[in-house]
Amino acid sequence: MQPSWTSWGTTQPELPAAARELLESRLGALTPTTPASIDAAELPRSRLRRTVAARLAEVVGDGGVLTDDEARARHAGGQAYADLVRRRAGDAGQAPDAVVLPRDAAEVGQLLRICADDYVAVVPWGGGTSVVGGLDAERGRCTGLIALDLSRMDRLLALDETSMLATFEPGIRTPDAERLLAEHGLTLGHVPQSFERASLGGYVVTRSAGQASTGVGRIDDLVAGLRMATPAGELVLEPIGGSAAGPDLRRLVLGSEGTLGVVTEVTMRVRRTPAVRTFEGWMVPSWDAGLAAFRRMAQDGPHPDVVRLSDPNETVVSMTMSSAGNTAKRLLSTYLRLRGVREGCLVVTGYEGSAGDVRYRRDHVAEILRDHHGAPLGASAGKAWERNRFAAPMLRDTLLDAGALAETLETAATWTNLPKVYDAVRVALRMSLGDGAVVGCHVSHIYPTGASLYFTVIASADPRRRVEQWLDAKAAVNQAIVTAGGTISHHHAVGTAHRDYVERDLGGPVGVAMLRAVKDAVDPRGILNPGKLIP
Amino acid sequence: MQPSWTSWGTTQPELPAAARELLESRLGALTPTTPASIDAAELPRSRLRRTVAARLAEVVGDGGVLTDDEARARHAGGQAYADLVRRRAGDAGQAPDAVVLPRDAAEVGQLLRICADDYVAVVPWGGGTSVVGGLDAERGRCTGLIALDLSRMDRLLALDETSMLATFEPGIRTPDAERLLAEHGLTLGHVPQSFERASLGGYVVTRSAGQASTGVGRIDDLVAGLRMATPAGELVLEPIGGSAAGPDLRRLVLGSEGTLGVVTEVTMRVRRTPAVRTFEGWMVPSWDAGLAAFRRMAQDGPHPDVVRLSDPNETVVSMTMSSAGNTAKRLLSTYLRLRGVREGCLVVTGYEGSAGDVRYRRDHVAEILRDHHGAPLGASAGKAWERNRFAAPMLRDTLLDAGALAETLETAATWTNLPKVYDAVRVALRMSLGDGAVVGCHVSHIYPTGASLYFTVIASADPRRRVEQWLDAKAAVNQAIVTAGGTISHHHAVGTAHRDYVERDLGGPVGVAMLRAVKDAVDPRGILNPGKLIP
Repeated sequence: MQPSWTSWGTTQPELPAAARELLESRLGALTPTTPASIDAAELPRSRLRRTVAARLAEVVGDGGVLTDDEARARHAGGQAYADLVRRRAGDAGQAPDAVVLPRDAAEVGQLLRICADDYVAVVPWGGGTSVVGGLDAERGRCTGLIALDLSRMDRLLALDETSMLATFEPGIRTPDAERLLAEHGLTLGHVPQSFERASLGGYVVTRSAGQASTGVGRIDDLVAGLRMATPAGELVLEPIGGSAAGPDLRRLVLGSEGTLGVVTEVTMRVRRTPAVRTFEGWMVPSWDAGLAAFRRMAQDGPHPDVVRLSDPNETVVSMTMSSAGNTAKRLLSTYLRLRGVREGCLVVTGYEGSAGDVRYRRDHVAEILRDHHGAPLGASAGKAWERNRFAAPMLRDTLLDAGALAETLETAATWTNLPKVYDAVRVALRMSLGDGAVVGCHVSHIYPTGASLYFTVIASADPRRRVEQWLDAKAAVNQAIVTAGGTISHHHAVGTAHRDYVERDLGGPVGVAMLRAVKDAVDPRGILNPGKLIP
Repeated sequence: MQPSWTSWGTTQPELPAAARELLESRLGALTPTTPASIDAAELPRSRLRRTVAARLAEVVGDGGVLTDDEARARHAGGQAYADLVRRRAGDAGQAPDAVVLPRDAAEVGQLLRICADDYVAVVPWGGGTSVVGGLDAERGRCTGLIALDLSRMDRLLALDETSMLATFEPGIRTPDAERLLAEHGLTLGHVPQSFERASLGGYVVTRSAGQASTGVGRIDDLVAGLRMATPAGELVLEPIGGSAAGPDLRRLVLGSEGTLGVVTEVTMRVRRTPAVRTFEGWMVPSWDAGLAAFRRMAQDGPHPDVVRLSDPNETVVSMTMSSAGNTAKRLLSTYLRLRGVREGCLVVTGYEGSAGDVRYRRDHVAEILRDHHGAPLGASAGKAWERNRFAAPMLRDTLLDAGALAETLETAATWTNLPKVYDAVRVALRMSLGDGAVVGCHVSHIYPTGASLYFTVIASADPRRRVEQWLDAKAAVNQAIVTAGGTISHHHAVGTAHRDYVERDLGGPVGVAMLRAVKDAVDPRGILNPGKLIP
């Protein structure tokens, strides 16, 4: 069974009574909404010419070109709040003219040539989980537009256990990749919140960071080689451990968001399945104390593989929302009473490795946390987090049903700029959405030079302008981030949502010109994911 | 006092008698050569027009444009064997028309505009240590050619101890950078063999790897931000810890070898000076045993910060050449006798960090080495390596004086391909230079997916065709590396020496087209280091 076209999961959590109470006390009474069923979806007429559809079908065979309403509606946008609001209202305006499902790299190359010939825009489609408009049906100079759905390209093509390299097709989902690797005692270790739905190719082109990225590294560090089809031919970057032979063009593909080509193969670093995997919870007395502890871990080591520091708001909200709420709340209030403070910040740490390695790091991290007045909550709080680590998107659907606006956004900054960026985003959200809005934040990735910030927003939805309400708030946040010196995205990528704010991250106009020159060289007709990434 | 125009250091080691014996037994009698003094240098006439020189001088002030023979001869090529042979013969044919010394980023920008206007080629000049022809006076479409010497841009511009970031000008030498950082208890930790002469900007554009890169990472991992002047304007990539905002264009600058612009500022990650820094020596019974041990360290951890595994040839030669020869030889023969084997391979390991961290890793690495039948030689062998870690280029000058051909080359490959690449290079060298040639090899950088290979060649020089003799051998090696699946350079970069063999590393014709498109966008007249890197 697959989820409905408007929901993340096949099941959905109930909103705990305490959470409903908290929300209504902040946002006032909420009016529940019901999502439109896919049968009620309103789609634009398909603009793909029949002759082109026939040429595409010649490549991908019977069943490889879908033009039925359901298939098109299921590819109408990603998982941003705006996407969900539109689909819940029955609006499938972002639907492609057709969904095309290639079976291998050669077919992708042939499809791109046909699309280039006929000015058909190509939106590469992995798990469909973009939250930044990366799947929007923007046509640029093109007339037709297809979603290039890579779900049939989901094989493990090669495994080299000597060099610890696994070559996958891009459409594979992480649970499948992990299952195939587990047969050999191996793992990727890349575990973003979208783990269950996102595709490997999607991780690569959006520069994904997983929950354990502080340990194993971002996807950038895990990609050893890749193949990318472009209208100008194929880019083949073999996996070589360590090179100074010119710029590393893998890094141009990483983050290219389908604008430079379609990734058809990815060779990933794999590792042995860790003997030990353990999570634990801590409380620290303040956000600043938590940041100081995390900075010391990142700069002087050792550090956990998974880190998470919730600000006071998120600490309260996540404990209220979570099904483990009662245990956690008891722990929290015990902690606060013992410490004689009004608020606290939840810390989660996770370790993967050999027993000795985990013990060594855990002992030292505990020392650092104690130096910053942290108190251990034990393994149960860690387990509670682990149990719920993929639940947030489903909880969001519940909140939307309840009538709330619910969205997340993220950034990263140097340790120096982090407090400024944190304040600026909160101010921008409050100014846009009102003081009642519930804004929580956590740090989930630490680097020697800085850290990420991930914000969750729950506000009262304006039923007359649901999409615009959020787009206005988002614009204010984007501007605040740029002004305060954060990156416009730590791991959600650029898409359309950040396109007009990405110039600084790309190094200014000269960087944009460099990127555009690359695009023009491989995609002179501009068929590849028009309107995304490049300002 | 600065070194002569033909030598690396201001002093030069004597060739130990045992080394001379070994060489003559392999290569036959050697005929000593004496390098030409700089006063005897033969230079081409300067082709820089006087009006252009005057415009450049307006920017950089009095003393900023040097056209005298000595300054030009000192910028006639780098430190490749071919460069040294030419200069030793009095040939300064690679001299630029002028040497121009900007004082800051703004001046670099102005100089580039003038040079673009007048079709003057610009060879960015850091420490002058390229061994791949990266400083060759190739003119492309240009008439004039200047060496843009960055030695006056050697300041520490900013230090952020919260985010552990230091911003330097590109011309600074590593000892100076380390001295400035040491005042704050900080260090870069980037220690290539060229440490004493190379510039920070040079490291960045050639993707340098230091001797401790297995621990602290390659320069790629240490660069957080940078500025680059181009004829089309400035690229400004600020240091941000963690971003998914499009491709990381820092990685286009890394490895660009002056072909895309001139790096004018680099923001580096810095770390606290380690409390403990220690080296030790081990012997393992074979090259394969050493590789297996190193692979396990890299893949399963923990690993040292500095690793080095010499093959049997290098083990013997380095012990013969080294001033610590006698102690080391005694240790070696004791080891071989105890083990009852004919040959052994020297391993050096180095650790930097807190006492606890170093103890933890050292204990585990010792276990891994013992599992592979390694025997400890103790700290003295490690100390001997540390003492001589920068001596090789000076020893090379001694060998050239003695009448030998002496050069190094390097590559890297996956663990799977490493044995094949190792064999292929040795065969190519023997075929080109004869069976007498002494070819040693070591691994000095390990990755989870593979390792580097660094070859040292000492052969009988053919006095009638010294340069061609080596270029022929080098061509054979380049081809062998490409065929066997290695990278054309692990840390020496591309320059002119590898340009015709780099296409595969760049991903094939499409990758080359992408890189060329970037160059055309920022340097439409092709003034930036013509003929380097891009095939």
